[in-house]
Amino acid sequence: MVTDMGNPILGTNLVTQIGILVNDIERTAQDYADFFGVAKPPISCTGVYDEALTQYMGKPTLARTKQAFFDIGPHIQIELLEPDQEPSTWRHDLDENGEGVHHIAFDIDGMEEKIQLCAGKGMPLLQRGQWATGSYAYIDGNEKLKLVLELLEHKPPQKG
Amino acid sequence: MVTDMGNPILGTNLVTQIGILVNDIERTAQDYADFFGVAKPPISCTGVYDEALTQYMGKPTLARTKQAFFDIGPHIQIELLEPDQEPSTWRHDLDENGEGVHHIAFDIDGMEEKIQLCAGKGMPLLQRGQWATGSYAYIDGNEKLKLVLELLEHKPPQKG
Repeated sequence: MVTDMGNPILGTNLVTQIGILVNDIERTAQDYADFFGVAKPPISCTGVYDEALTQYMGKPTLARTKQAFFDIGPHIQIELLEPDQEPSTWRHDLDENGEGVHHIAFDIDGMEEKIQLCAGKGMPLLQRGQWATGSYAYIDGNEKLKLVLELLEHKPPQKG
Repeated sequence: MVTDMGNPILGTNLVTQIGILVNDIERTAQDYADFFGVAKPPISCTGVYDEALTQYMGKPTLARTKQAFFDIGPHIQIELLEPDQEPSTWRHDLDENGEGVHHIAFDIDGMEEKIQLCAGKGMPLLQRGQWATGSYAYIDGNEKLKLVLELLEHKPPQKG
């Protein structure tokens, strides 16, 4: 328990990712690798709909994104994201604002409770999805915090 | 020495700040304080020109910014920035892109060398300035890294 860091809404104030939208992840991952003096990391991709069950603005979407990760501290990574053309918060913000920071992420416990807490504070759910061992939710923090929040829960999602 | 983290251009890959431009720092600092469950931090302001010697795009500027800081990990803070109307990378990006993330920061040694290294990699200097015990430089990493970099050196600047 980190008692000196207050009583945050999400149960933590440790930021674990800075998510950056890019148009060409191969190129930008190489540029980050050169900048950090590391090998270019593997480029992965989020799951197909049947695995990810991605919901954007309350509706199912086929959207997927390529991903690459770089360590920028003991507990935090930069995540590069190159989304496909299907509807998503990734595609929307890349089309609207161009390349750049999309979100900061927090590792949380209790996804449903935390989504509701945020909604009650004027920060509604934008998108959610899952993978074999975890789930995520993007929260619209633009009005209050000037960015999107990602909640990450590292436990196998319940069968819906 | 952090040998497992490569040989980065800046001599480090530890990100120490996420800088966020805002229009009303009193309001957004309160919203972040509520979100993190902490007291609203003090709002400070960068120095007047004679102290800060701020240069933007190679020219002296009277620009100053209000600042507030929140811990988001053992080595990293969110910095809120509300700039005045004088020319600066803060004012430019706030006018151009609206509120949101402006930069990520790295604590570095050897400011002049690091500014030159970045320039040689296609990332030119945007703005620089100083305070009693340190100096900073903003580097245009938008093309390659999709954001602005801030270099922070924590030692008293040499008299110019």
